[in-house]
Amino acid sequence: MVRQQSIGIGKCALQLVLASSDEIEGLKSEINETTFQYCLGKTGSMDLQKVVSAIETAAKRNHIIEEGLYREMHALYHAILEAVQGVTRGQVQLGDVMRTVGLRFAVVRGKPYENEQEGEWIAVALYGTIGAPIRGLEHETAGLGINHI
Amino acid sequence: MVRQQSIGIGKCALQLVLASSDEIEGLKSEINETTFQYCLGKTGSMDLQKVVSAIETAAKRNHIIEEGLYREMHALYHAILEAVQGVTRGQVQLGDVMRTVGLRFAVVRGKPYENEQEGEWIAVALYGTIGAPIRGLEHETAGLGINHI
Amino acid sequence: MVRQQSIGIGKCALQLVLASSDEIEGLKSEINETTFQYCLGKTGSMDLQKVVSAIETAAKRNHIIEEGLYREMHALYHAILEAVQGVTRGQVQLGDVMRTVGLRFAVVRGKPYENEQEGEWIAVALYGTIGAPIRGLEHETAGLGINHI
Amino acid sequence: MVRQQSIGIGKCALQLVLASSDEIEGLKSEINETTFQYCLGKTGSMDLQKVVSAIETAAKRNHIIEEGLYREMHALYHAILEAVQGVTRGQVQLGDVMRTVGLRFAVVRGKPYENEQEGEWIAVALYGTIGAPIRGLEHETAGLGINHI
Amino acid sequence: MVRQQSIGIGKCALQLVLASSDEIEGLKSEINETTFQYCLGKTGSMDLQKVVSAIETAAKRNHIIEEGLYREMHALYHAILEAVQGVTRGQVQLGDVMRTVGLRFAVVRGKPYENEQEGEWIAVALYGTIGAPIRGLEHETAGLGINHI
Amino acid sequence: MVRQQSIGIGKCALQLVLASSDEIEGLKSEINETTFQYCLGKTGSMDLQKVVSAIETAAKRNHIIEEGLYREMHALYHAILEAVQGVTRGQVQLGDVMRTVGLRFAVVRGKPYENEQEGEWIAVALYGTIGAPIRGLEHETAGLGINHI
Ligand SMILES: [Mg+2]
Ligand SMILES: [Mg+2]
Ligand SMILES: [Mg+2]
Ligand SMILES: [Mg+2]
Ligand SMILES: [Mg+2]
Ligand SMILES: [Mg+2]
Repeated sequence: MVRQQSIGIGKCALQLVLASSDEIEGLKSEINETTFQYCLGKTGSMDLQKVVSAIETAAKRNHIIEEGLYREMHALYHAILEAVQGVTRGQVQLGDVMRTVGLRFAVVRGKPYENEQEGEWIAVALYGTIGAPIRGLEHETAGLGINHI
Repeated sequence: MVRQQSIGIGKCALQLVLASSDEIEGLKSEINETTFQYCLGKTGSMDLQKVVSAIETAAKRNHIIEEGLYREMHALYHAILEAVQGVTRGQVQLGDVMRTVGLRFAVVRGKPYENEQEGEWIAVALYGTIGAPIRGLEHETAGLGINHI
Repeated sequence: MVRQQSIGIGKCALQLVLASSDEIEGLKSEINETTFQYCLGKTGSMDLQKVVSAIETAAKRNHIIEEGLYREMHALYHAILEAVQGVTRGQVQLGDVMRTVGLRFAVVRGKPYENEQEGEWIAVALYGTIGAPIRGLEHETAGLGINHI
Repeated sequence: MVRQQSIGIGKCALQLVLASSDEIEGLKSEINETTFQYCLGKTGSMDLQKVVSAIETAAKRNHIIEEGLYREMHALYHAILEAVQGVTRGQVQLGDVMRTVGLRFAVVRGKPYENEQEGEWIAVALYGTIGAPIRGLEHETAGLGINHI
Repeated sequence: MVRQQSIGIGKCALQLVLASSDEIEGLKSEINETTFQYCLGKTGSMDLQKVVSAIETAAKRNHIIEEGLYREMHALYHAILEAVQGVTRGQVQLGDVMRTVGLRFAVVRGKPYENEQEGEWIAVALYGTIGAPIRGLEHETAGLGINHI
Repeated sequence: MVRQQSIGIGKCALQLVLASSDEIEGLKSEINETTFQYCLGKTGSMDLQKVVSAIETAAKRNHIIEEGLYREMHALYHAILEAVQGVTRGQVQLGDVMRTVGLRFAVVRGKPYENEQEGEWIAVALYGTIGAPIRGLEHETAGLGINHI
């Protein structure tokens, strides 16, 4: 069950959210040599619903998942929630506990395992800042969620 | 409160655990140009206590934190727990819920903020696999914890 | 401490929420032969507060609990929260994590233990669907909470 | 996206664990008229790992899931964890918080949605007792986990 | 629904665990003027089961609760778990996350409400230290759980 | 690493929130003999954000922490969240799960360890009532959070 790709699907997603503006093009070329599909975006809010919604919307608009198929939405949804748990570390809450996030997100879809039958998986990575709703009173945060699709 | 370093302390820790063997030397050179101190290690277990312990021990042995000072141990401990929450996503448990991890970890210490008074902070990053205690039945996982020290 | 009734109080509550329209009358007859009191209802919302409130209100209106007595409200409240944890499985949240529920609920009160001194207990069962706020993008969910009263 | 079956996959799993010995045969006949596959079992322990393991083993032995395929094990694993959260309501722990369970479990696999593309899903239902490790000092508990496979 | 006693049942339990050796006698006299019953003890462990067990055993031996009655054990058990959540703040775990506690505990039983029908309630208070399993590397911790009985 | 003060920083914070109006002056005199700084306040809400905000604002206005320094805000924030977990015992939520709090809070800052290098720490204590949003349908609750600053 060796990985099919030269790079893991989760690592790929994390590198996309961590990449600086001058690293991103090189990274995109690298991913384009794999069979992975991906989308990238930004979201910032005290409202967790908006964060979840921004990632779902981006994945649908970029045809990473098929919007009308619950199976795909369900896979994505749980991957998002798992990534959000890395970001929130304990309480899956933002404004309710007086904090806000500014995040980059990446959704990557593909076949990460050598065995063809393992099929497609999805990775959601988040990276950015979390903190008080006052600029600068914040530190970095990250999360990764992975699911079969 | 602009970041003092060209790279965030959390991003630095995440890049260390994500780096492949041919990327690691370049990354180390890059970090050596910052004022950050760091250590890197590996740990794998069904026993969460061993994971926590391996990171604490590495941070002490590599003089990233001062072992006799509770203040520093406390800062590290909570950063580890936050990183572990990203890895476990929901229940901070491994063997109890029949799963095991194989992780690389990085502990980075330094002054990530421009304002000198913000002092030192610590970042703990984890990246590896989580899954059933059967080789190959696993997917990637990651976590990041950050604390003032 | 053998059960006093031919059917457990929790099983009774679960059967009430699972029953189809043609099963419900037979079930009601069966429960009427026990000493259990019960009420049944429906609630659907993205707002967890409305779910909790709907169950509390139904239990009060149907005289399953005595509204002015905190002791009874407290017993019911914790039974509701426990049932909600089965429905939400991890984060006791709905709209905040972009999901909605459509639930049937049953509250059953009575003496489930043979030993008269064990007194009255309360069971809250929930069954329905949870998912995205789009019709059809949902799967089944259930929960059971039990408390002494 | 109307349900394909006359009965939901989760309701089917819950009915299997709730059925008394004289109800079970009728229920099995009813399920045999659907396209669902299922297995039934019992497990009791203060050790959560044994509970998870008993369900996984039964699902593999009864060919509900394909053991060598991580995709299927992953789907089952998360469905089990979700069902366990209904049973434990808050802390996914048994012996550590001085309690034990005696559970019946059912694993049901099939196509619950009318749209063929929604594919297969898996439901895990649990029902039994939870309480102090002293006979009789226990009340009922239940849980339901559902996942795409 | 004014409090019947000059002091709340939870405050009474907290004061018992906070009292220094020269305060305890005065406090005991004060409580003896109420209708509250109580017991006091100490427990220290990396094993949460031992902490739960020590409190249950003390409450039984001191006849604060009636051991054979599940109703009373259930009320105490949930009050203990609630108090433990204050002590552990997030993960209800000790040794698994490499930490240990040294705690004083108090269990208080009585009628805290003026309305006689509110009946008896139970309070469990915990106070002591939590930290690494190395002497001195610890800070204070506390918790309070309250339940109707 | 013996405590420097005759009273622990957490015990001090708990005593402040527990003190009745005739005890508070004696307690204040006692604390004034230590090197601890503190502030006291009240907050009541169904909205957790307001609770967190009230404590943060009081600590800033009373110069217990330096508002512009993220390091200090971060230490306070995590101490508040830990104290709130004792109050909420499981779900860090109020109105969402249909409950409200009325709390006294104390924030204490100082050097609780004999070893000068352990530096300053912060304690947040909460005590009051939690319950249904109907007067009298409530019981006591408490929490304590401690952090290095
Ligand atoms: Mg997984
Ligand atoms: Mg933080
Ligand atoms: Mg219970
Ligand atoms: Mg789901
Ligand atoms: Mg309560
Ligand atoms: Mg701590």
